[in-house]
Amino acid sequence: MCEANAYIVRGNEKTLVMESVDSVEPSENGMMLVNIFGEQKFVKGYIDSLSLVDHKIFLKEYSKS
Amino acid sequence: MCEANAYIVRGNEKTLVMESVDSVEPSENGMMLVNIFGEQKFVKGYIDSLSLVDHKIFLKEYSKS
Repeated sequence: MCEANAYIVRGNEKTLVMESVDSVEPSENGMMLVNIFGEQKFVKGYIDSLSLVDHKIFLKEYSKS
Repeated sequence: MCEANAYIVRGNEKTLVMESVDSVEPSENGMMLVNIFGEQKFVKGYIDSLSLVDHKIFLKEYSKS
């Protein structure tokens, strides 16, 4: 299985938001994460970077304005 | 190995831009893709969505303006 763990990056800090993520799809004002168990989580942000061999997805939140 | 193939989405069309992608990192005005062989490719766009169990990364180009 090639799922990955999704982290939110805030400055130098990385916070795990969801494990075993299969799909990430754009949704209204953010991204919908779905893991291999079908669980969903919404992040008000975007995909910043990927490191797939490390099984990592890095998201960043939209800056509040 | 958990690399994925990267596609650029234009309307309903998906064009393969790089196979066996390991990392995708933000770079000036776009994203730098690096595959497991260390080859690099620059895409003037952003990550639209992921389907990791299918080993697919979908990128979209910034609209020209």
